[in-house]
Amino acid sequence: MFLINIDHIGIAVHDLDGALAEYRRQYRVEPVHRQIVESQGVEEAMIAVGGSHIQLLQPRSEDSPVGKFLASRGEGMHHVAYAVVDLDAALEHLRAEGVRLIDQEPRIGGGGARIAFVHPKSLAGTLIELVESP
Amino acid sequence: MFLINIDHIGIAVHDLDGALAEYRRQYRVEPVHRQIVESQGVEEAMIAVGGSHIQLLQPRSEDSPVGKFLASRGEGMHHVAYAVVDLDAALEHLRAEGVRLIDQEPRIGGGGARIAFVHPKSLAGTLIELVESP
Repeated sequence: MFLINIDHIGIAVHDLDGALAEYRRQYRVEPVHRQIVESQGVEEAMIAVGGSHIQLLQPRSEDSPVGKFLASRGEGMHHVAYAVVDLDAALEHLRAEGVRLIDQEPRIGGGGARIAFVHPKSLAGTLIELVESP
Repeated sequence: MFLINIDHIGIAVHDLDGALAEYRRQYRVEPVHRQIVESQGVEEAMIAVGGSHIQLLQPRSEDSPVGKFLASRGEGMHHVAYAVVDLDAALEHLRAEGVRLIDQEPRIGGGGARIAFVHPKSLAGTLIELVESP
């Protein structure tokens, strides 16, 4: 099996500071990392939970992918990210199976990781991100 | 911190057999557990990923919670479940913080675990399930 872990669950929010304050108040958790990822048009914060993370995503503009998601669906779960050992091999396998990809080649995501997104129409309406484990 | 792990991500699907076949084809994963949970009106299958799981949920009727979710939102991520050490203490804490719960008291979910759901209006549109770690 090439999925080695749930790296994170991405959750779209309107107000990152407000969402972090609610996570702190309700679940006593703190972000371990926070950054602006210009290439994705978001500011993100990562909260560690066991060996995985909750990733809160606030769009930087209404026409970014997360901005459009918020406009059409409202706040909530946006994607699930799986850690893989070898992202190039995973994408080659998915292409060979005829799976519809968003990213044909790996790109750099938050924290400098190599990532690629798989289209939600490929698998039960779920936007899947693959993250190469460093 | 009382959230010890992401126990699973629940994904609503129309056709459990079809979804499992696609997970198998695309990601080479197999379910480790499958059961009908009458109290929730679903048939569910659990796929292990690292220390966590993907839970595929097919409604048994259109008027079940997952059936209504599918009718209004379509297939996709339905909830995230966190493992907690002490579910009674977690619910008491959330009540004291004024957090809106779906289940005031623990009930029995798939696999016989003690579970409770927290209302999605409480935290960024995310339906949260708490699962007591056995």
